[in-house]
Amino acid sequence: MSNSSWRFSKRALAMKSSIIRESLKLTAKPGVLSFGGGMPAPELFPVEELIEACRKVLTERPDEALQYGTTEGYTPLREAIAERMNKIGVPCTADKILITGGSQQGLHLLGSAFIDEGDYVVTARPTYLGAIQAFNAFGPKYATLPSDDDGMVVEGLEEILVEKSPKLIYLVPTFQNPDGRTIPVPRRKEILKLAKKYNTPVVEDDPYSELSFEGKVPEHMFSLAPENVIMLGTFSKLLAPGLRIAWLIAPNNECFDRCVKMKQGADLHTNTFAQHVVYEFMKTGALDGHVEKVRKLYARRRDVMVAAMRKYFPEGVTFTEPTGGLFLWVSLPEKINATELMPKAVEKLVAYIPGMAFYPDGGGDNSMRLNFSKANEEEIEIGMKRLGELFQEALNS
Amino acid sequence: MSNSSWRFSKRALAMKSSIIRESLKLTAKPGVLSFGGGMPAPELFPVEELIEACRKVLTERPDEALQYGTTEGYTPLREAIAERMNKIGVPCTADKILITGGSQQGLHLLGSAFIDEGDYVVTARPTYLGAIQAFNAFGPKYATLPSDDDGMVVEGLEEILVEKSPKLIYLVPTFQNPDGRTIPVPRRKEILKLAKKYNTPVVEDDPYSELSFEGKVPEHMFSLAPENVIMLGTFSKLLAPGLRIAWLIAPNNECFDRCVKMKQGADLHTNTFAQHVVYEFMKTGALDGHVEKVRKLYARRRDVMVAAMRKYFPEGVTFTEPTGGLFLWVSLPEKINATELMPKAVEKLVAYIPGMAFYPDGGGDNSMRLNFSKANEEEIEIGMKRLGELFQEALNS
Repeated sequence: MSNSSWRFSKRALAMKSSIIRESLKLTAKPGVLSFGGGMPAPELFPVEELIEACRKVLTERPDEALQYGTTEGYTPLREAIAERMNKIGVPCTADKILITGGSQQGLHLLGSAFIDEGDYVVTARPTYLGAIQAFNAFGPKYATLPSDDDGMVVEGLEEILVEKSPKLIYLVPTFQNPDGRTIPVPRRKEILKLAKKYNTPVVEDDPYSELSFEGKVPEHMFSLAPENVIMLGTFSKLLAPGLRIAWLIAPNNECFDRCVKMKQGADLHTNTFAQHVVYEFMKTGALDGHVEKVRKLYARRRDVMVAAMRKYFPEGVTFTEPTGGLFLWVSLPEKINATELMPKAVEKLVAYIPGMAFYPDGGGDNSMRLNFSKANEEEIEIGMKRLGELFQEALNS
Repeated sequence: MSNSSWRFSKRALAMKSSIIRESLKLTAKPGVLSFGGGMPAPELFPVEELIEACRKVLTERPDEALQYGTTEGYTPLREAIAERMNKIGVPCTADKILITGGSQQGLHLLGSAFIDEGDYVVTARPTYLGAIQAFNAFGPKYATLPSDDDGMVVEGLEEILVEKSPKLIYLVPTFQNPDGRTIPVPRRKEILKLAKKYNTPVVEDDPYSELSFEGKVPEHMFSLAPENVIMLGTFSKLLAPGLRIAWLIAPNNECFDRCVKMKQGADLHTNTFAQHVVYEFMKTGALDGHVEKVRKLYARRRDVMVAAMRKYFPEGVTFTEPTGGLFLWVSLPEKINATELMPKAVEKLVAYIPGMAFYPDGGGDNSMRLNFSKANEEEIEIGMKRLGELFQEALNS
């Protein structure tokens, strides 16, 4: 009966499960307050509006909404996204927008379209774990640069571009997952100048820029260099992740066409029905008001979390204070290993993602990511208290 | 501005666009009666029931249905599928069922999990084009065997297994796309015996077996050798393709886990909302009655198509007469090349998929696939008349 001798691909044998998703399973234990996931606040899901959008789509155009669709995506949705993107200063047209099954698929398509085994990808350290997971299927190496308060540093980038000819520079420039840091415009320009000089595409993964708590965000990298950036946007944080509707903006036809072909092979096309529902929701004009609600709630929760961290965390523990997004980053004294601390955390009924998960080439042992969008204020208060005690005990031991 | 010098992956540079999808674009010309696609009849979509399922899901459990989900899929849906599979004689449990974004994704995950560049995959010729498209991303070679009236022949299989050590044997054993042929049980057993002897997994792609026009279908290959077959099922033909809900049944934990890991990287998980909606629809018990309606309509359309082909096609043109599914296969006299005939067909306002698209290693020039599920009876009659004239002219020229 054992088929352990089936000959899987080298790729499959090398793939590890996402630490995030495995951690989430561990922390599903009853009573655990988890700050590990990256889930939007479900109480804000615009349920009534979505019921109406479903009814409308299925009443008015069931033949189209339930049928096979084009790989590129539902044209009116692509047009609505292009319009919204232009409104926030991203100059793009619908014909370069590819609808994807979440931005995770966008990352996977880019990995597929660009990475041969052994090719380098540049990322910040820490960087978004899901991107590492998506790229790893294609056997890349990573050349990483550290982050300061302004995100990935530029020092060392040119050397990497010269010596390692990376295929992609991957960035979450605004409210980066996992650390909430944002790259200011001057640094964006420096990165783009080098990227251009060495003809290396920049992937701007942008799930959070509309979730700014303090007004305007820096100009998008795509806006600063529309010919050299591939941008990823998503409705997961703006509307609902369960709909799995995101988009990739290609800077030119060749890049667009290659991504479309990879998607044809991967899943033919994204859920037609969900595309219609999201389009219908956008058409009502309710998205802006909804995003405003999300912003306010997350800003409030960040405030509560930061205040509780100040109150409960022992000296020597530092953290970022993001002005948007869903995450902040905690740095512990060197002697504490956040991965090793996890079982004790779960005993104390609190959970996080160990920082090492976000380091594609090792490191980050004494850090962790915390999410402030999902738990309510009371839970945040209790959770930070538990974490403070946990840190204190680790320091004392 | 030109980024044609971006260094795409070898994989991307080798990928061609699906002939089906490109053909479908060509034939979108107004007035063309296309028998090219593989679309279900939209007039049968159970719209009222789906509106109610959406309303129920969003009213009763919006927090879950709109949120991130597990990579494996929505557990109650996996359980409902397992129950249904067992009812049709496929012995499986929910914990080995992975929900995928259409069977196309299942094929892609299997390609990813098994195929290294240069590995062989066994298929019938002709075989399903979407599988070729999915596998091609991983750079396989194909070892193909011809089909007779009973589907892929066994002669030559052992030689391939010995000499080429293929990673997978890919089959659509029941009402195969593109030719509608079905492999009888004795031949299934012969194939499975060899597959087992050489420890090579069989992929049983099974989108059509519930759409039988004449009662029982042969036992599934998975049922005949549950330890050696990976099965793919889908709601695309039973309910609606736009929902993109399908499933992969793994024969053992290792295979299941490896597919799950590839899916994590590819898109995290399948649309949660659509999974809940399909589950809710299944729960009403309406699926069986719906499938019965689909069966009756397609059987009728096949009858009409076959009768019209007898009436209008010139001597020397032969075709399969499938007892289920969505497709039949036309063989033209040697001198006619169906690919070269396409522009003339479109001029005559009729379209098909040239047979060569279904031959992974060349051939099939004088054949074509026709779909009988989408067009209504009048359209079928007119379309076959146009095709008959087209063939006659080609023969005369």
